[in-house]
Amino acid sequence: MIFKNKDINPYKKIVILGGDGFCGWPTSLHLSNLGHEVVIIDNLSRRNIDNELEAESLTPIQPIGTRLNVWEEITGKQIGFYNIDIANDYDALLNVLSNEKPDAVIHFAEQRSAPYSMKSPKHKRYTVNNNLNATHNLLCAIVDSGLDIHLVHLGTMGVYGYGTAGMKIPEGYLNVKVETEAGESMDQQILYPTNPGSVYHMTKSQDQLLFQYYNKNDNVRITDLHQGIVWGTNTEETKRDERLINRFDYDGDYGTVLNRFLMQAAVGHPITVHGTGGQTRAFIHIQDTVRCIQLAIENPPAREERVMIFNQMTETHRVNDLATLISKITGGEIAYVSNPRKEAIENELNVENNLFLSKGLEPITLNEGLLQEVTKIAEKYAYRADYSKIPAKSTWTKEQQPGVPGLGATT
Amino acid sequence: MIFKNKDINPYKKIVILGGDGFCGWPTSLHLSNLGHEVVIIDNLSRRNIDNELEAESLTPIQPIGTRLNVWEEITGKQIGFYNIDIANDYDALLNVLSNEKPDAVIHFAEQRSAPYSMKSPKHKRYTVNNNLNATHNLLCAIVDSGLDIHLVHLGTMGVYGYGTAGMKIPEGYLNVKVETEAGESMDQQILYPTNPGSVYHMTKSQDQLLFQYYNKNDNVRITDLHQGIVWGTNTEETKRDERLINRFDYDGDYGTVLNRFLMQAAVGHPITVHGTGGQTRAFIHIQDTVRCIQLAIENPPAREERVMIFNQMTETHRVNDLATLISKITGGEIAYVSNPRKEAIENELNVENNLFLSKGLEPITLNEGLLQEVTKIAEKYAYRADYSKIPAKSTWTKEQQPGVPGLGATT
Ligand SMILES: NC(=O)c1ccc[n+]([C@@H]2O[C@H](COP(=O)([O-])OP(=O)(O)OC[C@H]3O[C@@H](n4cnc5c(N)ncnc54)[C@H](O)[C@@H]3O)[C@@H](O)[C@H]2O)c1
Ligand SMILES: NC(=O)c1ccc[n+]([C@@H]2O[C@H](COP(=O)([O-])OP(=O)(O)OC[C@H]3O[C@@H](n4cnc5c(N)ncnc54)[C@H](O)[C@@H]3O)[C@@H](O)[C@H]2O)c1
Repeated sequence: MIFKNKDINPYKKIVILGGDGFCGWPTSLHLSNLGHEVVIIDNLSRRNIDNELEAESLTPIQPIGTRLNVWEEITGKQIGFYNIDIANDYDALLNVLSNEKPDAVIHFAEQRSAPYSMKSPKHKRYTVNNNLNATHNLLCAIVDSGLDIHLVHLGTMGVYGYGTAGMKIPEGYLNVKVETEAGESMDQQILYPTNPGSVYHMTKSQDQLLFQYYNKNDNVRITDLHQGIVWGTNTEETKRDERLINRFDYDGDYGTVLNRFLMQAAVGHPITVHGTGGQTRAFIHIQDTVRCIQLAIENPPAREERVMIFNQMTETHRVNDLATLISKITGGEIAYVSNPRKEAIENELNVENNLFLSKGLEPITLNEGLLQEVTKIAEKYAYRADYSKIPAKSTWTKEQQPGVPGLGATT
Repeated sequence: MIFKNKDINPYKKIVILGGDGFCGWPTSLHLSNLGHEVVIIDNLSRRNIDNELEAESLTPIQPIGTRLNVWEEITGKQIGFYNIDIANDYDALLNVLSNEKPDAVIHFAEQRSAPYSMKSPKHKRYTVNNNLNATHNLLCAIVDSGLDIHLVHLGTMGVYGYGTAGMKIPEGYLNVKVETEAGESMDQQILYPTNPGSVYHMTKSQDQLLFQYYNKNDNVRITDLHQGIVWGTNTEETKRDERLINRFDYDGDYGTVLNRFLMQAAVGHPITVHGTGGQTRAFIHIQDTVRCIQLAIENPPAREERVMIFNQMTETHRVNDLATLISKITGGEIAYVSNPRKEAIENELNVENNLFLSKGLEPITLNEGLLQEVTKIAEKYAYRADYSKIPAKSTWTKEQQPGVPGLGATT
């Protein structure tokens, strides 16, 4: 199907950076399934980190080539793939943009685990170098290409910091009053002052300044999605064939809190809660992640508009409440362990997410059916689990005890 | 002289990163002269950029080895030197810190020209990669070394952005009122929301987030000096021998506004003003730069204190007023040229600098004597000038006319 007039073509050419990852893979399939033309760029660094950590996805993910062949076999749709390190091979990235001329680029390609980013100086430095150069190279290449490309980036709820007492977290921008020299009160809207909780989260705060600048200087259209913790594993598309199955991280570095609890319960490991479990976090199901990204692609900001920031989350929960709920459903027991992170013991979290709701998102919220679906997958692949990888061993400072089991990644 | 008790030793061991540069060199001599033990790290990248741009310092600066030998010859004081790229050789940087065990590190080692940072994708990417990895490697190495090192960093007034109408620019932190969910007004103090005007300035905004994080997580003591445009060339120490002379940049990329005007007038080139010259900028004389850094070193923040931010500037001037003043003194004529930057045509700038004043700084302000001193140096070395390097050719966007002569660097 060839549309000569771009305006009447509802289908877009979309380049997906990090399209082999946990969020990127189901997003690629979802958008391809809708009829968009999808091209993936990924350097497979996440698979190499599996090797480094000697920890694998609980689910048996297939090599990217197999994934793409199976998708074509089932649907007849082709997804292109380039193995490029976008942080280190600018020319190759620019070439793909210049040749593919995408309408949009979705940028998932960053090191995304907070514990991994805190493991050692080497890991801190890798995370800063990879994430900042990846994002900056992309912005440079978009300007350099001369194309009017809509950039959709995955940021994190973690940039806000946890604990602004009594205040609802807005979507990216904060209304403040400042005093003028004349002593008058002046209204201003500013980028929310960030308070990141790890080197990983810090890079996402720094990304925001990159977006602000390139948007201002070069009018790049940018949507930045401040995402909560993603849970679940499969989506409508990844369920269509066993070989399309999505990644399921359960180890102390990459496993995120809700999925970790479900996996621990499924394999008969205690549900490990940090401290009192008083931390409140924001969540979203992977099926909603892919829908949100679709909505972001369908609603690009105007050319001279400032960076559009959405809070991509559907609900908040106190960690201890989740552990209790899962314990009730599964009969698993809870183990309270000391917290390897440096953070407040307890926090409230009240988040605005009107932007996605106004664009038509109908949130999937935590329910027993979905929880049981994840538990079933975890049970099915329990034989693949390496229990020694479950404890979170990366501590935030040298002073903190090494080797305490913990909560895992918050991204 | 060996002090066994550190408390009664007024002399410190100080590592100076970027100690071969325009600010770093006179600072090294000033602190060495006061009796501190100084070690310089520099990869000489600034001299290599001179080669790349085919533009040299107006003054005949000597190789670093000669500089250090002359200093020892004259004063009997030794300054150590390591040629290390701190953005790319972490292990070497860590080694120097571990072996030298400095009380303080002064960090000048960044690419510091706004026009250079905007020349091409390559230059943008170099600036981001060099500046962010330099600062992050340093923070990592300080934590990694286990030493309690005071980090003094040179930032820029440019992070504030120019043009917050009617508001005095505070020293790093801004008092704001935000509304709680209950509808009450809550006082908060936040990092000043930055609005950088170039890729170079953006990296300094991003540096601030690095400092905020490492200060919070690891209690690193940090002083961040938001410096205005430095003018002048010699200090008391660099005047002591012709071979100690400081760098004088006059080219379109590295020359900064006041020095450029003085040099242009001295060599009989028109004084080039952007647009109407309605931009207001903050200034400081190089002699005050070295005194401010001395004061920062003598007044480290406490171990658990937040990042200390000083505005390191002594006065503000409208660019056109400076051009008029210099034209009056020297008889040089003014040429109004189009602005290669993307910025407001006019702006007010009202800046707090009480912190340095309260620590005892007695500001040197613009006066005919000092202006004439700079003009004399420019006249003396006028024979070294390459007039073709005077125009500022780096434009902020592709749409802007290439090749228009302009104002030069604002750092
Ligand atoms: N998973 C979550 O709960 C969550 C929550 C909030 C935000 N996010 C954000 O969403 C994005 C995707 O997260 P994810 O969970 O899918 O992570 P992931 O690690 O599974 O996927 C990231 C993908 O990017 C690739 N990549 C990394 N660096 C690259 C580079 N330099 N060049 C090319 N490819 C590179 C990796 O190989 C990987 O396939 C991240 O930016 C993350 O910060 C994730
Ligand atoms: N000159 C000004 O007017 C001014 C104004 C405000 C702020 N500043 C800031 O003060 C600092 C010093 O400025 P300057 O005018 O002396 O600049 P400069 O370029 O003359 O000096 C910087 C020095 O750092 C070195 N360097 C750069 N990257 C390095 C790396 N990766 N490893 C080792 N050495 C490296 C260079 O070789 C150079 O000698 C900069 O951070 C600048 O942003 C300068």
